[in-house]
Amino acid sequence: MRLRNKKGAYDTISKSPYLISDYEKHKGNFKALFGNNNPIEIEIGMGKGDFIIGKAKQNPDINFIGIEKYATVLLSAFKKLDGETLPNLKIINMDAHFIEDVFDKEISKLYLNFSDPWPKKKHADRRLTSSILLDKYKNIFVSHRIIEMKTDNMGLFEYSLCSLSENGYILKEVNLDLHASSVENNIETEYEKKFSSLGQPIYRVVAIQEVDIQK
Amino acid sequence: MRLRNKKGAYDTISKSPYLISDYEKHKGNFKALFGNNNPIEIEIGMGKGDFIIGKAKQNPDINFIGIEKYATVLLSAFKKLDGETLPNLKIINMDAHFIEDVFDKEISKLYLNFSDPWPKKKHADRRLTSSILLDKYKNIFVSHRIIEMKTDNMGLFEYSLCSLSENGYILKEVNLDLHASSVENNIETEYEKKFSSLGQPIYRVVAIQEVDIQK
Repeated sequence: MRLRNKKGAYDTISKSPYLISDYEKHKGNFKALFGNNNPIEIEIGMGKGDFIIGKAKQNPDINFIGIEKYATVLLSAFKKLDGETLPNLKIINMDAHFIEDVFDKEISKLYLNFSDPWPKKKHADRRLTSSILLDKYKNIFVSHRIIEMKTDNMGLFEYSLCSLSENGYILKEVNLDLHASSVENNIETEYEKKFSSLGQPIYRVVAIQEVDIQK
Repeated sequence: MRLRNKKGAYDTISKSPYLISDYEKHKGNFKALFGNNNPIEIEIGMGKGDFIIGKAKQNPDINFIGIEKYATVLLSAFKKLDGETLPNLKIINMDAHFIEDVFDKEISKLYLNFSDPWPKKKHADRRLTSSILLDKYKNIFVSHRIIEMKTDNMGLFEYSLCSLSENGYILKEVNLDLHASSVENNIETEYEKKFSSLGQPIYRVVAIQEVDIQK
């Protein structure tokens, strides 16, 4: 399910203290925004926010930034944040294709959860694990590049394992039926709850690319 | 299912023209045994032989060597070969742990089909995709190392994807439900027929490690 932006959705979310509207100004300096030196982890395609909000609650010593293209979808996330105080969570309303203009050597981990599978071959470049996107993530990481991905989509997962591998990532953990595995502290997304309750396996991979630190 | 060797099994199979009993003498020179320059592909754990016999019939321009530890299991394979004339097929009765003493820069591809999963963590080193075994395969390949693996065992497949990746292999093809995919010329093993007919997904990976040719 992908929603189009509704008129007024951005006006509504822009009033939230969680939203970073001038995100491009903070490039290379997001630590200052959080006011501490804790690691920063991001989720591209945070949707209605269950995962990133859950992560922020579970890990007060890690800063989280959720990224979502659709302001309309973010409305649901901001409703969930009403009355919450999570100083370690921020949200950006933007398209992942611009990510290299926003972060510079400051991200410790990237989460991709239930991303759009773009099943047609001619749209493969749009998948968030395509070579094109992996290339855009290159300079956002502090040092080692770490991507943790979950999906129920078999085709996207098969594609992603190969794409990550071909782009220099080493697969460190693979789960072909996450909910039958003993992975600790798993936080479910909205999609995950739905598909897992239907008995569909949830796939997960943690992939790492070790790089020379050139700061 | 793993069978122990029965007394007399080796005596019976040793009479077959397909068996190479003095295999160590051919190290580095298996091409001469086949009498041509065609590529040589091997299967470790050929079991009752459906896969390697099918491959040899399907590809007369490739030489195949099936390797199996248990002479008793090979009895079934040799029965299937009665009356067949396959000059591009040979069989070796040995343990894969000795493979580096048998081949030297002469194998184009290694097949691992439905290998023993060795599910206990303390036995992980015995899995045919462990670092220890991958290390033993290093010098058997002509140039690029190519491993094609199939299994119905989820735990073994998860382990193998990570182990291959961590040992320098790039994943080129991954299928998480082979029989729902459009892979051409798939030859089923005995196990594959059985497990697939029970509705269990068959996993497959083709992994490649490009190496400098140092011949």
